[in-house]
Amino acid sequence: MTETKAFAAQSPTSGMAPHGISRRSLRRDDVAIEIDYCGVCHTDIHFAQNDWGVTQYPVVPGHEIVGRVTAVGPNVQNYREGDVVGVGCMVDSCRACSACEAGLEQYCSEGMTGTYNGKDRHDHSVTFGGYSERVVVSERFVVRIPEKLDIKAAAPLLCAGITTYSPLRHYGVKAGHKVGVIGMGGLGHMGVKFAKALGAEVTIFTRSESKVSEAKKQGADHVVISTDEDQMAAAAETLDFMLDTVPVQHDLNPYLNCLTYDGTHIIVGLLEPIEPALEAGALVFKRRVLAGSLIGGMPETQEVLDFCAEHDISCDVEMLDIHNINDAYERMKKGDVKYRFVIDMATLKNS
Amino acid sequence: MTETKAFAAQSPTSGMAPHGISRRSLRRDDVAIEIDYCGVCHTDIHFAQNDWGVTQYPVVPGHEIVGRVTAVGPNVQNYREGDVVGVGCMVDSCRACSACEAGLEQYCSEGMTGTYNGKDRHDHSVTFGGYSERVVVSERFVVRIPEKLDIKAAAPLLCAGITTYSPLRHYGVKAGHKVGVIGMGGLGHMGVKFAKALGAEVTIFTRSESKVSEAKKQGADHVVISTDEDQMAAAAETLDFMLDTVPVQHDLNPYLNCLTYDGTHIIVGLLEPIEPALEAGALVFKRRVLAGSLIGGMPETQEVLDFCAEHDISCDVEMLDIHNINDAYERMKKGDVKYRFVIDMATLKNS
Repeated sequence: MTETKAFAAQSPTSGMAPHGISRRSLRRDDVAIEIDYCGVCHTDIHFAQNDWGVTQYPVVPGHEIVGRVTAVGPNVQNYREGDVVGVGCMVDSCRACSACEAGLEQYCSEGMTGTYNGKDRHDHSVTFGGYSERVVVSERFVVRIPEKLDIKAAAPLLCAGITTYSPLRHYGVKAGHKVGVIGMGGLGHMGVKFAKALGAEVTIFTRSESKVSEAKKQGADHVVISTDEDQMAAAAETLDFMLDTVPVQHDLNPYLNCLTYDGTHIIVGLLEPIEPALEAGALVFKRRVLAGSLIGGMPETQEVLDFCAEHDISCDVEMLDIHNINDAYERMKKGDVKYRFVIDMATLKNS
Repeated sequence: MTETKAFAAQSPTSGMAPHGISRRSLRRDDVAIEIDYCGVCHTDIHFAQNDWGVTQYPVVPGHEIVGRVTAVGPNVQNYREGDVVGVGCMVDSCRACSACEAGLEQYCSEGMTGTYNGKDRHDHSVTFGGYSERVVVSERFVVRIPEKLDIKAAAPLLCAGITTYSPLRHYGVKAGHKVGVIGMGGLGHMGVKFAKALGAEVTIFTRSESKVSEAKKQGADHVVISTDEDQMAAAAETLDFMLDTVPVQHDLNPYLNCLTYDGTHIIVGLLEPIEPALEAGALVFKRRVLAGSLIGGMPETQEVLDFCAEHDISCDVEMLDIHNINDAYERMKKGDVKYRFVIDMATLKNS
């Protein structure tokens, strides 16, 4: 059993700041990883704050992990010491159900094991994430970071990246398609890059006039101010897909109306009940589809990294000293980051 | 201009009972049809009662029309006097948009012209439906009734039939799939027949224990009492598709939970806002899809008739004297019909 000093998110209610969180010793298929960088996802804030009522303190957030292999178990086949690797949102699954067999471990019938705040399937301990010096993960849930990628900017591909890439691929977005992207945060800006790289014509929907130039800089062909009724009316029935990255409740109906017949609205961020109520007629009268999508399976998580290397895509990141994590959370709540904080884990090791 | 005596639904507010509603003289691509039978759809009640606030009185409902061709315009190519033909829910569309070009006239970008209470695209007159002696319809919106079909039972295929057949075909339902059908009315019982004919294993969801034997008689492999929590829990994550024919607001969430990952819930009846609120997580965490579907295009409406002839499928009907239409409406509101009323139009002609 390796003991390690780890950053643990403070509970806003308990003020607890535990140290000495353990990492398991290597199992036969395990890879030990020294963490270099870890992206900061809005989900981390929800868990740190116990917004969903399921947090088990102490919690160590972080599921956009990049680092170097320091040791491998005897059955590990694909990685060896020194390899640059990544770990995303999950670290295990049942590996036997039809979803797991299809490489869609995120839809495991038993539920995937989250990278943090999950329950280890062997010893039932709580899993700890990437705001840490190191992590131990079964080979199946490790991906290789292509050499061409800037590893700092690669970290957010493991959640923000795969979350937006997976549905665009699943629904076969390609040249000739018109894709709308709602939300210009960590996920939204990646969605724009992927949709463009896949050949689509991309429209960004934003509430604020002030974001228009930034949206164009990100590669959007068009920008629609969603609070402008005339602009929304002009966009009616023009899009094949809508990638909706907004993580809080919002009215989907005006966006559904922007889809052509057979158009698909994909939600990847919204987890709350859909209110205001969805208009059933908006689906029925145009054979439209409302679809959900959750991160991506392990083969596709490797694929998105390779795709980014091939297409020279990376996440726009702002590097962070881990001692400023609480300030970063506050800035994220205000949308004040372009577009993803990435923790330089050296700031933990050197503190 | 042919004058004809027509049944016109009484407005419950005006008590108006007009006669002498006109039918247009033949245009070059028109087919004149002497109506033998007309199915009674729940939509007819909504229009007769002005439930949706859009009824233009006098209204002549009826969009499940079967009859014989009595005359054709000079440009008509596919029909001639004596042919047994049908007319469904629409009688025109723009014929130029991408949906129309794809034979999906129901999704016409300008909106289809309804068989009744629509506006004729040439003379802007109100269209009148099938509770009538005859109707004049452009060839493109006429279908041929295969000889093998019982023409009385064929009438409801033009709405109840195509509405359930179209989404099952669109989503590629086939042997090996597990399909749930919610609702055991005119649409639901057709959905069961089609899903079975396509090779699927079918589960009927009904609120009432009393419908179990009837559901089995309709060909269902399994029946789930939707008000029984244990039965619903046992059905969790078992189905690939759910065909939801319930025409009024209901909670979709328990049914979504019955779908496997990548499962699809298809609504064909519900036109009201979706309340209680849809759980976004039920879509996201299993990549499930909520889809709408509206009747079917003209090529597919011909296809469903041919499919029924080939597979010996017909709608279960109860024949109706038109003088009893108001009683029939009351019985339909109580779900007291197995499963579709069909008006014998001879009862109008002989009255």
